[in-house]
Amino acid sequence: MSRIGVWFVGVRGNIATTAMIGAKAIANGTAAPTGMVTARDPCRGLDLPSVGEFVFGGHDIRSGTVLGRARELSADNGTPSPEALSAAGDDLAAINDRIRRGTALNCGESVAALSDVEPLEADNDVPEIAERLRADLDEFELENDLDDVVVVNVASTEPPLSEPDRYESREAIERAVKGGDDGLPASVLYAYAALRGGRPYVNFTPSTGSSLGGLRQLAEEESVPHMGNDGKTGESLVKAALGPMFAARNLRVRSWDGHNILGNTDGRVLEDETNKRGKVESKGDILEGILDEPFHNRVRIDYTPSLNDWKTAWDYVRFEGFLGTEMTMQFTWEGSDSALAAPLVLDLVRLIAYADDRGEGGLQPHLASFFKSPLGVDEHGLSDQFDLLDAYAEARAEPPEAAPRGDAEGSGS
Amino acid sequence: MSRIGVWFVGVRGNIATTAMIGAKAIANGTAAPTGMVTARDPCRGLDLPSVGEFVFGGHDIRSGTVLGRARELSADNGTPSPEALSAAGDDLAAINDRIRRGTALNCGESVAALSDVEPLEADNDVPEIAERLRADLDEFELENDLDDVVVVNVASTEPPLSEPDRYESREAIERAVKGGDDGLPASVLYAYAALRGGRPYVNFTPSTGSSLGGLRQLAEEESVPHMGNDGKTGESLVKAALGPMFAARNLRVRSWDGHNILGNTDGRVLEDETNKRGKVESKGDILEGILDEPFHNRVRIDYTPSLNDWKTAWDYVRFEGFLGTEMTMQFTWEGSDSALAAPLVLDLVRLIAYADDRGEGGLQPHLASFFKSPLGVDEHGLSDQFDLLDAYAEARAEPPEAAPRGDAEGSGS
Amino acid sequence: MSRIGVWFVGVRGNIATTAMIGAKAIANGTAAPTGMVTARDPCRGLDLPSVGEFVFGGHDIRSGTVLGRARELSADNGTPSPEALSAAGDDLAAINDRIRRGTALNCGESVAALSDVEPLEADNDVPEIAERLRADLDEFELENDLDDVVVVNVASTEPPLSEPDRYESREAIERAVKGGDDGLPASVLYAYAALRGGRPYVNFTPSTGSSLGGLRQLAEEESVPHMGNDGKTGESLVKAALGPMFAARNLRVRSWDGHNILGNTDGRVLEDETNKRGKVESKGDILEGILDEPFHNRVRIDYTPSLNDWKTAWDYVRFEGFLGTEMTMQFTWEGSDSALAAPLVLDLVRLIAYADDRGEGGLQPHLASFFKSPLGVDEHGLSDQFDLLDAYAEARAEPPEAAPRGDAEGSGS
Amino acid sequence: MSRIGVWFVGVRGNIATTAMIGAKAIANGTAAPTGMVTARDPCRGLDLPSVGEFVFGGHDIRSGTVLGRARELSADNGTPSPEALSAAGDDLAAINDRIRRGTALNCGESVAALSDVEPLEADNDVPEIAERLRADLDEFELENDLDDVVVVNVASTEPPLSEPDRYESREAIERAVKGGDDGLPASVLYAYAALRGGRPYVNFTPSTGSSLGGLRQLAEEESVPHMGNDGKTGESLVKAALGPMFAARNLRVRSWDGHNILGNTDGRVLEDETNKRGKVESKGDILEGILDEPFHNRVRIDYTPSLNDWKTAWDYVRFEGFLGTEMTMQFTWEGSDSALAAPLVLDLVRLIAYADDRGEGGLQPHLASFFKSPLGVDEHGLSDQFDLLDAYAEARAEPPEAAPRGDAEGSGS
Repeated sequence: MSRIGVWFVGVRGNIATTAMIGAKAIANGTAAPTGMVTARDPCRGLDLPSVGEFVFGGHDIRSGTVLGRARELSADNGTPSPEALSAAGDDLAAINDRIRRGTALNCGESVAALSDVEPLEADNDVPEIAERLRADLDEFELENDLDDVVVVNVASTEPPLSEPDRYESREAIERAVKGGDDGLPASVLYAYAALRGGRPYVNFTPSTGSSLGGLRQLAEEESVPHMGNDGKTGESLVKAALGPMFAARNLRVRSWDGHNILGNTDGRVLEDETNKRGKVESKGDILEGILDEPFHNRVRIDYTPSLNDWKTAWDYVRFEGFLGTEMTMQFTWEGSDSALAAPLVLDLVRLIAYADDRGEGGLQPHLASFFKSPLGVDEHGLSDQFDLLDAYAEARAEPPEAAPRGDAEGSGS
Repeated sequence: MSRIGVWFVGVRGNIATTAMIGAKAIANGTAAPTGMVTARDPCRGLDLPSVGEFVFGGHDIRSGTVLGRARELSADNGTPSPEALSAAGDDLAAINDRIRRGTALNCGESVAALSDVEPLEADNDVPEIAERLRADLDEFELENDLDDVVVVNVASTEPPLSEPDRYESREAIERAVKGGDDGLPASVLYAYAALRGGRPYVNFTPSTGSSLGGLRQLAEEESVPHMGNDGKTGESLVKAALGPMFAARNLRVRSWDGHNILGNTDGRVLEDETNKRGKVESKGDILEGILDEPFHNRVRIDYTPSLNDWKTAWDYVRFEGFLGTEMTMQFTWEGSDSALAAPLVLDLVRLIAYADDRGEGGLQPHLASFFKSPLGVDEHGLSDQFDLLDAYAEARAEPPEAAPRGDAEGSGS
Repeated sequence: MSRIGVWFVGVRGNIATTAMIGAKAIANGTAAPTGMVTARDPCRGLDLPSVGEFVFGGHDIRSGTVLGRARELSADNGTPSPEALSAAGDDLAAINDRIRRGTALNCGESVAALSDVEPLEADNDVPEIAERLRADLDEFELENDLDDVVVVNVASTEPPLSEPDRYESREAIERAVKGGDDGLPASVLYAYAALRGGRPYVNFTPSTGSSLGGLRQLAEEESVPHMGNDGKTGESLVKAALGPMFAARNLRVRSWDGHNILGNTDGRVLEDETNKRGKVESKGDILEGILDEPFHNRVRIDYTPSLNDWKTAWDYVRFEGFLGTEMTMQFTWEGSDSALAAPLVLDLVRLIAYADDRGEGGLQPHLASFFKSPLGVDEHGLSDQFDLLDAYAEARAEPPEAAPRGDAEGSGS
Repeated sequence: MSRIGVWFVGVRGNIATTAMIGAKAIANGTAAPTGMVTARDPCRGLDLPSVGEFVFGGHDIRSGTVLGRARELSADNGTPSPEALSAAGDDLAAINDRIRRGTALNCGESVAALSDVEPLEADNDVPEIAERLRADLDEFELENDLDDVVVVNVASTEPPLSEPDRYESREAIERAVKGGDDGLPASVLYAYAALRGGRPYVNFTPSTGSSLGGLRQLAEEESVPHMGNDGKTGESLVKAALGPMFAARNLRVRSWDGHNILGNTDGRVLEDETNKRGKVESKGDILEGILDEPFHNRVRIDYTPSLNDWKTAWDYVRFEGFLGTEMTMQFTWEGSDSALAAPLVLDLVRLIAYADDRGEGGLQPHLASFFKSPLGVDEHGLSDQFDLLDAYAEARAEPPEAAPRGDAEGSGS
């Protein structure tokens, strides 16, 4: 297939770094595509772009090199391994030249505090920022001779946008950008830059991104594929798998308490109650969409620095069964946040570039399983969401004789 | 609908006792049908027999009254509550007259040791036992003026039958019964008695029951519905919900260690390695059917008397994700064994009597979600199994205007 | 020994109710003294007052009967059992006449919201309240012909007192009470009433109580025994047992995250951030006193109504061992809050009445093991605290021939 | 102090390898002595030999280099880190020359199957083996100009010795060795070789070692210090810390189920029921020695290869409190077996060499906290065992002005 550019908003963060290293490691055969949904059937049967041919770039508000970040990650978390790192080293160095200064507009103080470079808003107003972001994408495409550029938001969580209904129409959002409405948050400006330029957009965070009515209308009208919000990687994945079990068995969940502790930048930003709000809602909503009856539903997210990139979740479920018998289930999930997220990011780029290539614009409901709050999808049960993806892939899969394509992602795991 | 008899093999055990009390409590409105799958959509839309009209009886090899067992259960486990008990008291007393002496043939020493009455084999040979069991069912039906009798095996686990292929045809099994083949285990004789008399049969245990080729042929030819094996109530239910999550996300499970501890009679019998074997296989197979690649799969079942009817499972899953990152998930499930099993037993009786009434004989693959080792079904993912049931119910559901039928099971939970 | 009155501040709460029922159940032989430290050696060898002869009374700001509260507890939690309840029924009824209207002064809005009777402050100023509380104790002693009255605070947690140093001397506290200082919280007024009347005082809560310098001086000068703060019943008990293990083995704890969820009134009040503060500090300090080096130490307390009187704690410890290896330990504790606290309350009454009888006034460091924040004791390791109690008891124990005394508490468990 | 040789039985195993690397890493300042008990007060105040001056050697029945084993460990478990490894590299290479062929006599088939060199018993009878082992120690001491040699058993677990009473006297054991009694297991021959040569002996495994009456008499008479059995590193450490909590609070443990899974050679050998027996007894006995009343006490040890050197334990405790209330506690411990054991091995060498230097022969009860089954010590509570060590050290500690000695172990952690 074609030559795809991947533009990360937050390119110096853990997820982008892990995704870039992983793509190289898979391409050069030092790693299997474990954790990638598109490496197994039925997605494997689609003619998706190969991760080995991805060209990476992105925006960030922090300084430093990708390789430097990768080394820190490796030392603190054991992942990526020193071997994967050294195999990807040269490629990572090249990426530094394709990093541009980004914006943290309305991302809250905690995000701003992370920044050690002048963000765009230091010397630009909103229309200029929007212009700058789009020009960066154009330049990236042109200089690297790309067929398509997918923009992926993996930056820190913004506070929820108040009164999002003000931007319910395309006209309203365009007027706001051009008129210099300074209530617009960074994620919306990035999404606008992508979609306005006809480039697919994926929001892997709970930030507002392309979820505004005006941006959805724009994407629809211009037939640009986009999807979000908030990658479903750990605790919420398990919730989406277990919730339907309780529902289908008519077991009445009385309380579901989830406690997440994590140690990375995401955790640091979520210490800030204003930023945390969006995340907690996104996580809590999963169960509300699955369980019929009201129950006590609490999600705690706490920052425990020594965990580094690891995230531990403990969930305690109390439920009532036959004859009012009260029973419990609890689980502890211990995962490396970036190792869980990165392969999904690669999957999403592959799938949304594929959709774009086929002219399938607007929301992508078959990608619901990747997100905590899948835009435009009411189905929250995990298996039913996987069924959406399978049906999509099966309807488009090449006939079996076309299957052997020799790229690493095709080899399953 | 019609008047249904429910004949429990193991009628004095915890599951049967809880099911009988629960049916009465639901009928008289003192309990909601929490935990019953047929009390929620789409099964609720079927014209299923009401549990309030079930007439109970059964075989057992232990003495004692149902009410006595119920009181012990209540005192030891808190379930059923004293209130549920006193509400069901009179009905339970009546059941005692419908209990007949059963058989523990080839159930192993541990099961035999439970018996404090003379089992049928003490003074009967195999053909006589088979005759006696069937006559008991006939009598039950006649005396209680029943339209149908469903036989449900909730007795203790037998050791696995060696060389089950000897009974692969109907002819072979009939010859064995008539010829006095003393290798036949009790569960097969009960299943034979049920099916031969045209009565639906449900095997809620991992014992052989109706899974022999010969009995399946018999059921097919006579168009008698039957299904098994081994109710999926706790740890295995969770496994069936979580396994597909790992598979679909291409996360490579390296090891899945499950440790079950339980304190009831089932636990006592499973102390015996010969009886345990069937159970462990049944539990282990679930994951083998879901996860593609080989992994370390161990299930431990231990007897801890002070737990009484409670069963605690701890499962520890170690899996590999992106770039070989090793991660873990563990869960602890604490459930009351009988409170989990009893509502499913009532569901199964309702659904299989319904199938019998409609002439739907043979295996019932839409009931797969109820069993650890669903006969004739390859699908082990929980949601896909639920989909089978939903599809069955939706295809047969009454038009909505027929929905309000006023029975307790119809009221949801 | 002598006839002891037990005066509960919060007499209609779960802990007091359970303690009163338990004392009766032990006295009439329907329950063993499981959970009571004084029922085992070496405390068993002391000539402690028998719980069977305790006379109960108390203050509260809620209406209702003790028996009514007991029935709710029994129905919601399974503890006390219906049997224990009916055995204690008559005695509980008598207690109602010995309940007096209390005060919730400066206990915060959440505590005030619990009240459905007029608290004393509705129609009294501070000097009058202090007078009233003491008169209630005098009356209780006189009417019931008691040799001693022990006051035990088991009321809901107050917000921490700001600037407690203003009450550092006896003179300051006496002036504040007499002068109508309206910054004094209820727990201080109760403690003052007890100590001023020469009556032993136990603070089983994290509220200020007798911990003020002025009250400690008063108790010292008048030789009245008193001790606190905050009963160590569940998660913190385990922390005090495990912390020294990490310390002694030179394993470096990096983070210790504790998450408590509970459903009783205590939990409801702790929803209020102002009330929660004192509790969290008290719980967190245990580890600070045990582990040498700084570490991430977080305690969460959340209210999950459906848990009723049960309290579940999950603690996750990440520690570094040899060669920097990072390892983890986690535990889940599931206990009935009142069933854990009540026997300790009875122990404390027995031990402090004994000390009073022997003229051992002031703080009681040998009772440190009972408290999260033991006043005047630096030792936080659980075993070392137990050693203090053992040494106290061994120094005072009767010679062995005096051991058989025939009361239930003496029979061990 | 003096120059100490450390002779490992099982020198190519994980524990010895980790201990040797760790000693070098601490000596050259690349690692802190985290996990070493002797690096903190009060042991820090003793004039113990420095680990940096230890000279290592040992017996083994497997081939391979120490460095090779270390690299495998590092790759599979992340511990030791590549940095620690490369820092210790040269030293490790030198150790290979000091490794001698060992014996696996009566260690069972599973241990024998590990061997890929000819063990001594292939061409020697018992008297010759005993002679050979002792000669190896002599040679090690002489060639390396050592002041003392401590022998430490870190080999795989043997099956328990049947009828150990046959070797109750020194005379019986000496006769058995000289007479070629082929019932003697390897661990006894090693212990005999050590003690007979006047060299201190530490048994870090549950194998018989020096626990025989005859060897204890020999050690006593010759005044050679020795101690065992079975290092208390993980689950059993926690048990020893938690058990006394339940006991002191008079909470009645009804059942304590422990489930251990591990993936190293130790785990492989323990798959063999005959070898497992000794281990399980050793682990179970801890609680029997702490809790007064009978309870259900089960320890499971299972081999899960993908865990490599990690060991995970889940313990589930059900206990009864006040008024018969049933409550639970569970914990999961996830530790690196070698990283937990190795620092203790270094501690033990330091402490027992110190004792030898002072002429303190025979059993060393102050080392009880290091062992699951401390020889000659009835005290199983962890804190009380630590108190024994503290008292020993405090009685012998140098005056404070002598404290700064500049070796790494002295710097605490």
